[in-house]
This record gives sequence, C-alpha cells and structure tokens, in this order.
Amino acid sequence: MSRKIKKIGVFTSGGDAPGMNAAIRSVVRTCAFHNIECVGIYRGYEGLMEGDFEPMGPRSVKGIINKGGTILKSARSKDFRTKEGRQKAFENLVKAEVDSLVAIGGDGTFTGAMIFNQEFDFPVMGIPGTIDNDIFGTSHTLGFDTAQNTVVEAIDKIRDTASSHNRLFFVEVMGRDVGHIALNVGIAGGAEEILIPEEDLGLDRLVDSLNKSRKSGKSSSIVIVAEGDKIGKNIFELKEYVDENMEGYDVRVSVLGHMQRGGSPSCFDRVLASRMGVKAVESLMEGKTNYMVGLKNNVMQLTPLDQAIKGKSKINLELLRVSDIMST
Amino acid sequence: MSRKIKKIGVFTSGGDAPGMNAAIRSVVRTCAFHNIECVGIYRGYEGLMEGDFEPMGPRSVKGIINKGGTILKSARSKDFRTKEGRQKAFENLVKAEVDSLVAIGGDGTFTGAMIFNQEFDFPVMGIPGTIDNDIFGTSHTLGFDTAQNTVVEAIDKIRDTASSHNRLFFVEVMGRDVGHIALNVGIAGGAEEILIPEEDLGLDRLVDSLNKSRKSGKSSSIVIVAEGDKIGKNIFELKEYVDENMEGYDVRVSVLGHMQRGGSPSCFDRVLASRMGVKAVESLMEGKTNYMVGLKNNVMQLTPLDQAIKGKSKINLELLRVSDIMST
Amino acid sequence: MSRKIKKIGVFTSGGDAPGMNAAIRSVVRTCAFHNIECVGIYRGYEGLMEGDFEPMGPRSVKGIINKGGTILKSARSKDFRTKEGRQKAFENLVKAEVDSLVAIGGDGTFTGAMIFNQEFDFPVMGIPGTIDNDIFGTSHTLGFDTAQNTVVEAIDKIRDTASSHNRLFFVEVMGRDVGHIALNVGIAGGAEEILIPEEDLGLDRLVDSLNKSRKSGKSSSIVIVAEGDKIGKNIFELKEYVDENMEGYDVRVSVLGHMQRGGSPSCFDRVLASRMGVKAVESLMEGKTNYMVGLKNNVMQLTPLDQAIKGKSKINLELLRVSDIMST
Amino acid sequence: MSRKIKKIGVFTSGGDAPGMNAAIRSVVRTCAFHNIECVGIYRGYEGLMEGDFEPMGPRSVKGIINKGGTILKSARSKDFRTKEGRQKAFENLVKAEVDSLVAIGGDGTFTGAMIFNQEFDFPVMGIPGTIDNDIFGTSHTLGFDTAQNTVVEAIDKIRDTASSHNRLFFVEVMGRDVGHIALNVGIAGGAEEILIPEEDLGLDRLVDSLNKSRKSGKSSSIVIVAEGDKIGKNIFELKEYVDENMEGYDVRVSVLGHMQRGGSPSCFDRVLASRMGVKAVESLMEGKTNYMVGLKNNVMQLTPLDQAIKGKSKINLELLRVSDIMST
Repeated sequence: MSRKIKKIGVFTSGGDAPGMNAAIRSVVRTCAFHNIECVGIYRGYEGLMEGDFEPMGPRSVKGIINKGGTILKSARSKDFRTKEGRQKAFENLVKAEVDSLVAIGGDGTFTGAMIFNQEFDFPVMGIPGTIDNDIFGTSHTLGFDTAQNTVVEAIDKIRDTASSHNRLFFVEVMGRDVGHIALNVGIAGGAEEILIPEEDLGLDRLVDSLNKSRKSGKSSSIVIVAEGDKIGKNIFELKEYVDENMEGYDVRVSVLGHMQRGGSPSCFDRVLASRMGVKAVESLMEGKTNYMVGLKNNVMQLTPLDQAIKGKSKINLELLRVSDIMST
Repeated sequence: MSRKIKKIGVFTSGGDAPGMNAAIRSVVRTCAFHNIECVGIYRGYEGLMEGDFEPMGPRSVKGIINKGGTILKSARSKDFRTKEGRQKAFENLVKAEVDSLVAIGGDGTFTGAMIFNQEFDFPVMGIPGTIDNDIFGTSHTLGFDTAQNTVVEAIDKIRDTASSHNRLFFVEVMGRDVGHIALNVGIAGGAEEILIPEEDLGLDRLVDSLNKSRKSGKSSSIVIVAEGDKIGKNIFELKEYVDENMEGYDVRVSVLGHMQRGGSPSCFDRVLASRMGVKAVESLMEGKTNYMVGLKNNVMQLTPLDQAIKGKSKINLELLRVSDIMST
Repeated sequence: MSRKIKKIGVFTSGGDAPGMNAAIRSVVRTCAFHNIECVGIYRGYEGLMEGDFEPMGPRSVKGIINKGGTILKSARSKDFRTKEGRQKAFENLVKAEVDSLVAIGGDGTFTGAMIFNQEFDFPVMGIPGTIDNDIFGTSHTLGFDTAQNTVVEAIDKIRDTASSHNRLFFVEVMGRDVGHIALNVGIAGGAEEILIPEEDLGLDRLVDSLNKSRKSGKSSSIVIVAEGDKIGKNIFELKEYVDENMEGYDVRVSVLGHMQRGGSPSCFDRVLASRMGVKAVESLMEGKTNYMVGLKNNVMQLTPLDQAIKGKSKINLELLRVSDIMST
Repeated sequence: MSRKIKKIGVFTSGGDAPGMNAAIRSVVRTCAFHNIECVGIYRGYEGLMEGDFEPMGPRSVKGIINKGGTILKSARSKDFRTKEGRQKAFENLVKAEVDSLVAIGGDGTFTGAMIFNQEFDFPVMGIPGTIDNDIFGTSHTLGFDTAQNTVVEAIDKIRDTASSHNRLFFVEVMGRDVGHIALNVGIAGGAEEILIPEEDLGLDRLVDSLNKSRKSGKSSSIVIVAEGDKIGKNIFELKEYVDENMEGYDVRVSVLGHMQRGGSPSCFDRVLASRMGVKAVESLMEGKTNYMVGLKNNVMQLTPLDQAIKGKSKINLELLRVSDIMST
C-alpha cells in the first residue's frame, strides 16, 4: 500500500550524535527527489509543540554532511510526555500541513514517536541516532562508528603518556547501559581489561588480571570502563581500590566525556545516514508507519518501533573472547 | 578434525593496508594463547624463499596495533611464481619446523598460497588485507574502512578550496578494478558524480549532470573518479574534455595517491584484524586449510581461497541509487 | 593621528588559506566592539566591482573560526587590473558608504589594494593569508602552520607504505616560488632530501645522497620536492632520472595537490587570525593606511604594502643545516 | 672555548610531551654527525642512578619523530634529590665514560641538572620539553604547540554537542600554574570566557559575562578553565555555583585530562625539537654548560638554567584583549 505523502517534518531529539546532520540532509534531499515538501522542526519535541518549523530544500542542507551535532538542535522534553503537549504538537502539524514525521534519535525519541502515532494515527518513521548503539534492529546506530574512532584516538594519546611513565590508566567511555563502545575500543586500543555492564568481572579478577599482565612484562596498562559498568564502584573508587590493593602502580583516571559525542562523522556514518534517510522517506511513501529503519546484514530493513525500544542490543560474545586472547 | 599445530608462520604480501600490523599482532598473540610457536616472515614470499624468519612472541607485537604499514614488510615476488622458488620456500619452512602459514594480503597473495598448498599439501589460511575491498567472501577487507576515512578527510579539505573558488574538482581515488572506495567516499564526500568501473556513465551524461547541478544552484562540484574507471579517458583527459565542452568551470584535478594506503587504522579495522587473526589461527588448529577468513553478516566465516579469488566482490547497487538521490 | 571610521569592508582574494574565516570573524567582531559597521564583500575584487556586499555582525560569523576556506569566497580578477574596473569598485564603495577596506590575501591581493589606495586615496589594510608564507613583513602568513601539519600527516601516511615496501617516494608540496613548506615538512617528515627553489642541489648530488642514505642502512626514503623547485626537471622527470640512474629503487611519485589548502585551521592560525583582525581594524582607526599587519618576533607589527610585496621572505638557513644533520 | 666531547648521555624526565622523541632523535643524529658517541638513559634520573644506559646510533631513533611520549621513558625521582643518589649517578657516568648530559624536561628536570652540574662540574645542557610552556627563555617549549591543537580539536567536538543542546560547558585544560594553553585554546576555540591563574576574573564578573553573552543571542557557551586557575573553586564547584546563580543554563563539565600530553607532534614541534637537539649538542661542543636551549624571536638561543627556572614565562597581555574583543 502506498500513501500520498505531501509534506514531511524531520527532527532530531535526545543526545546528539555524529551523522545526524547527514541524516537530515538525506531526508531533505530524498523529499526533493520525490517532489515532497520538507520542513525542519527545531529542538525535537520542544519545537514540535511550539511550532518552530522551517521549510527546507536541497540548498538548506548544503555543506552539513561533514558537520557534527545537529543543525536542527536537540532537546529533551518533559511536556511532550503530557497529553496536552502532544495535542499541541498535533495541531501545529495539521496547521503546517505536515502529514508525516521522521524522528532521528534514540529510544526516548522513539517512545515519544510511537505514542504520538498511536494517539493521532500520525505516520512516523524512526532513524536510530545515538553513539551508544543500544537500539535493537540495527547493527549500527548513527554516530557509533565515529564515536569509536574518537575514543580510540584519545586512548592512543593516553597510551603515549602511560607507556612513558609505566602507568595504569582507567579510562571511562560512554555507552549508557551497554558495553558496545567499551568492548570495541578496548580491543582496538589494546586495553588490558574492559569493564562492561554485561559482564561482572569482579574486583578480584581485575586485580589478578593486572598482576598477571605486569608479570608478563607489560609496564603500562589501560583499563576501559564503560560508564554503565556495574562493578559496584565508580571509576574514582576503582582507582582507590587498586591504589590500596596493588603495589607499584601509579594509577590515573581519565573520563573522556562529551567530546565523544562530537566531531565530523566517519565515512561509514555519513553513508549510513544517507541510506537511512532515503529508506525512511521511501518507507513512508510506501505506506509504512511506526517503524525504525536499520542496518541488518548490510541491508536496510524496518523494525517496528516497539521492538526497537524493548529489544535488547546484545554485545558480541566473540569480541569478549577476542579481547581476552589479545591481552595475552 | 583438529590438527596438532606446533609452529605458525605469518607474513604480509602485496600492497600494504592499515590493519595489517593489527592482524600480525593478533596471529602472534593467538598463537601464544594456545601455546603455539610463531615466526614472522619478512617481505612476503621473498622472505619465504630466503628464509628470512624471526620468532615472535606477545612482546614482539607490542605497540603496533595502531601503526599503519606492516612491520613484516611486504613485496611482490616474481620468483615465487616458479616451481624452484616455491620448492626453496618449502624447504625453508621444513627446516624451521613451521607447519602452517597465515598469509595476509589480496588476491595475488592468495593465489600464491593456494598453489603452494596444492603443491606441498602445506596448511595455509588467508586474511584479506587490501584497501580495495575487492575480495569475495568478506564484506570488508582490512584497510578498506580506514582508507575510506582517509579519502573523505582529503575530500573535505578539497571541498573547502573548491567552494571558496566555485571550482570543479576531479578527484581520483584508489580501488583497482572495483568502485567500492569511490562509491562510498563519493556519497560521504557529497560528490556530484561518481565514476566507477562497474558503471559506464558516459561523457555526455557526465556533462549533462554537471550542467544540471550548476543550474540547480551549486557553485562548486566534486567528481570522484575510481582509478579503474573505464570511461575511456584518464583523469587528465577528463579535465580537458570538460574544459572544452563546458563553459564557466574552473576545473582542477587531484590524484590522492599513496597516502590512501597509510595511516593509523580505524577502530573498525583494528577490531576486524584482531578477530581475523584469532579465526585464522583457530581454523588451522581445527584442521582447516586453503581458506580465507572473512566477515559475513558481522560473523567470522571461512571461504575457500579459490572462491575468494575468482568470486566477484560486487558493489552495492543501493548505494548507486542513494548517490543519485543525494546529488539532487 | 586617528581617523573616524564608520564602515569597513572586508574581503578575501587569491588562493584561499585556512584561517581566512577566522580573520573575517575577527574583523567583523572587532568592528562590532568599536561600534563600526562592517560589510562582507564576496569573491574579492570581483564582488567589489559588482557591489556584491552584505552587512555583517557578530552573529554572521558564528561557528566559522574552525572552518577552512572562506565564507566570502575568493576569486582572481582580471577586470580590477583596469582603471575602469577600479573606478566601478570605488563607486560601489562610495554608494555603500564604506570608508575603509581590509584585504585578506597574498601579494596579488596586496598589489591591487595598493594601486586602489594610490588612485582613490582609499584607506586599505592588508592581512597576509596564504599557505606559502611568501610575504615579507611577517614570520607567518595565515594558513602556513595548518598547511604544514596537513602535509606532515600525509607524509606520515606515505612513509607507512614506503617503509613497508622499501620504496623511494618523491612528494611534491606547495609553496609557489619559495621553499618554506618544503623545508619544514621535510625536517618534520624525516625526509632524506629536500629540493627547494632557493638551493640547487643538482641531480648528481641528489643521487649521491640517496646512495649514501641507502648504504647507511635506510631501506626506504622520502624526498620532498617544492613545487617551485628549479632543479630543471618536474617531479615525474625526476622519477625517470632516478629510475635510469639508480639501481634497486622502486620509485613512486605523489603530488599532494589542493588538499593542502583546506582543512580546519590549527590553533596557531586561529589565534594569529584573531590577532591580525584586531590589529587591522584598530590600525585603520588610528589613521594608518596602505600597510599589512604581520607577526614579527611574536608581536603584531605593520609593514608598508609595497615592502610586503617586493621584500623577499627568506628561508631560514639554519633549517637547511638541521635537515642535513638529521638525514645522517 | 671548545671542549672535546666524546660521549653524550641523553634522557627525558618529568611529564612527557610530544616532541620529546624528536628531540632524542636529533641529539642522537647530531652526535653521529659529529662523531660523538651517544647513550640513551632510561627513566630520567632513576636510570641515571641505576646505570640503565643504552648506546644509540642513527638507526636506534628511526621512525620515532612522529611518535608521542618518549622511548627513553620518564619518571619523577626522589632519590636524585639526595647527595647519595647524585653520587651514584656520577659514578655511573664516569664508568660509562659519558662526559656530558642533555636533559629534556621541565623546571624540575633543570633543577636536578643544575645541582648535578654544580656538585660534580659535569657539563649539562637542557632542552625544554613540557606542554605547559612555563619555562623562561623560550617562546615555545616542546609539546606546547601540539597540546594546543589537541585541545582545540576536543573543544571543536564539545562545541558540536554544546550548540546542539544550548548548553554551557566548563572545559578544564592543563597548564600547571600558567594560563598559556588556556588563553590560546580559548581564543582558538571561540570560548566565551577564559579563566587563568594570572587574572582573577571573579565569580560575579563571570556570571555577568555569561548573562551578557546569552542576551546577545548566543545559545551555547564554552568557558575554558586553566587547571591552575585561582578563582577559588574547582571546576565542579564552578558548575554548582552557576547552576545556583544563573537561570536557564544546562551546565556540563569536561576535564580533558592526560590525552593532552600524548599524540603525534605537530610539524612545529618536530622542527623545534630537531633544532633544539642540534643546538644542545653543538653548544656542549663549544664548551657551554648549564644552559637551556630555547627559541627567541625564531632564533635558537641559550639561557642559563637558573634563569630558565626562576624566570617567569609571562602570558601575552595582547591575547587577553583579543579574547575579550572576540567574545563580543
């Protein structure tokens, strides 16, 4: 079943991620290609409720494919959780003759979109944009690849100083409740240990592992700690624990922070964003609604929004094993 | 069937690619993990014939995961194409008690390995290392992801100057006979046209497309040309053709060249190399031989070497379409 | 003597350089700080003659400090070399009530500004923006530092592949008639030889040097060739000469090209651009005209435009000696 | 007066900095050029007291010019502060027939070198290696330029996310007791305010400035805080203060940490390191001792070690003014 789409609204919501601008560009240009009007909605659900819309054409998105952040800005909205907020949003869309939405963001964004779809039978399509890769239905979320490269470059720099001083570094990386970033950058950065929420290594085994590593001749070490790690201690407490329970280590902590969210997107993220934008618009044209576009086995596929939210994005157990072998 | 492996030889051959060092490191450390001895063989088949071997342990590969190039060096060998050359190589391996080989390289490397396997029944396992992504049986060869990022960063720089001067740039990128790099970096770099060997756009359509692009308001343009493009003209002839057949364009040419082969590998390539090294060694341990390890649907899988060589690594037609829509 | 300035016009002309946007931003914000109006003039002298002006305030230059290229675009103009062209430009300025000009560019730009100043007694101030560093009166032109880093990163990548294959690379870098870029990146890139216009090494000595280098145990080599080098052969002829006169070298050529002009400016260039913009506007306010602002001994100083153009920007002979010692 | 130097020992001490490896390489190659023997001393004064020496020739320093950290490793030593420790060091040097030392580091390193020189009349020459630029007698210490670029790239990334969310970021950068890094990266990163130890802005003025900035239409802001800033609050307390005293800001903190010390050195730092190494060795050959080599007005010059330590490396007041104007 195809639907006659006349005007699509596109917005970004939640934490920003590299590739969001490339996705906006793709939505806008795909609309132009199919002679569909397009409006940008500022600050996610906030702008939806305030009617902060702007018509966008191919030239509006010139020169943004390589820019981090989002030109439509993002926000987290409380009011959209209320029926009144959503009613206001709906009225703004009707007034502006927008008949479909493309929502770029993470699970919070998709939850809002799904509820909105249910209440007003309004066609919505999601594009997964978050560095955390914590969405079910896509092997890669937008920004995940870029963030990994950003973190690995930072780890390479930290290793320069770690190995000059025979130091042990605990490096905290983003990833919310999942260990995708930590696991990949840990392998790529040559970390001795990787602490992720999915696996409780335990403090004793950590200390054992570090001692073994030192005995094997390594004079410096890097331990990657996922921000969502559940080892029972935050990264500064970890440092104190090791200071007290291990000898001969000069331990330092580095929390990489928000720089992980920014930066020019990688080639992979730009291509993925371009593909996702095309797929999102054309899926709406085909009458699909309430789905998220995603990459499965290198092919664009749709996943119902409720599955994308509730499903678990599992870490690759093979990588855990590779990590263990690499720190031999 | 598992085979008792005692000593593995590892080498790199053909054009170097980012991630080769990470793959060497992984082979060496996986050997150590399984108590298998490991020797590095210098300069590919040249070193094999000369017996240029060196024992390698976990510390030999310290600090190389983030280095471009290959510490084992690479070479293209004529003598290995002779029966005498291969006989000499076999004798060196027997003398050094090496009982299996891991060959890191492209199709030329794999052809040599396959013939060697057939002649001497010598266990070999291939790891695909080339920036060109022209190997069947893996969605990504080592170095492909890094090279794409390197090229995209160069295109971003060229676009700065192109758009400051309203210029048209023809940018030649690597990729041998296939358009993988060109197609992806073309989309990611916001190119107006992408000329790849797989598709003959034709000069007239190129000129039409550029004229259309200019009329739509674009003041500068970038055209990506794959080195293997078969449009019938090299990149400098292309420039001349456009100079003569289009008005108002200030046309420039940039051949990116060998910098595309170097640089610190991306997170993706480092993780892929680590996975491939583990898979290669453990596949040999399981009695497998004459295969290439590869990534299919995000899982490590084996492909017979002859298929890897003869099979075609096809470009993704969806990307061609995305490229057309994006240059709207 | 101070002059009452009411409206400044700012433009970029000639080859673009990283830091030009930061300089535009600085001119605009310094004007705002002193309550002077500011207009941007597009495409250098072309826009001046066409009256392509746009009022600029602090928000017009938001988010451009880290962008390569120039938002005001640049062009090389033939018509401004005619009396009629300059008359038209003058009339446009009078009509727009612009009473002073800041010209960002190289010696061609300054020549135009100087003639315009002489003919119409119109206050002008120059900011040296070119990657070549070929302007007298400043230790650094805008973009020189960034371009050096861009080139060095490319050389590092080329060295990865050079040393993997024991190759000799000739790498051509920009710099017009001077060897500043070549000399610095040659030292920083660990080049075996550096061919610059200021010094005729001679082909025989080049071959001697490469032979000596090889005998000392170096298996790969990089020779930096300044585009303005006068050794009597272009870089491809150089390759042929070495191919014919030296044994055992696999020689490759890489012409880095226009990517050297682009990219996000370095910290140094952004700070320098900010300082130059302030100095340019405040010098006009002090009644100065027909000068270029420059960096001498880390202090902002003025140089008459005619000296900036005619004076020679000499290479540092100490660096030549350092280069010789480093390639020991 | 020239001195017959036969064997030079070189070491790195204190915090590591990009460019230290390039300086080691330069010392080693300059020695080879002048037929002087050279030994590397590991872990600074620790290795001096332990006799941890290794002969170094031109090939020992191959491929390190572009590496961060220091291959000789670094350490902070307590024992060298004792007479016994220094006596042990002297005996090791005599035994190894080392007759001169080149010490690469900061003021702590130089203090040790100066005392050692006084006690044993042992020729020493200092090379300033620290990212903080807090040494008198040189406009740039090794690593300062690279660290600034590293920080600016991080700020660019943070700005992506700051401007997507209309956030205020406090970003803490290194620099010990001086504001050199903070002041330069603040200008280059387009910061709204820069808090440095040399100037007490005061909390009230900070709040005023941020309020003014917001009223002028800026929706996001970045404030750079030097680690040595004396505003009376650490960066997390600053955040709390602003949270409590300003409305409508979503405030975040980012402490960039040790990644600032690592990374491949910039072109500038590599060239500077090469120049300093030549000057250090040749100054020892000329009979000079107890000096530091430095860059003054782009020329290599010597400063007595005691002045280098006691003198103040003052911030450039012009930059403070430029910063104020730029945040208009």
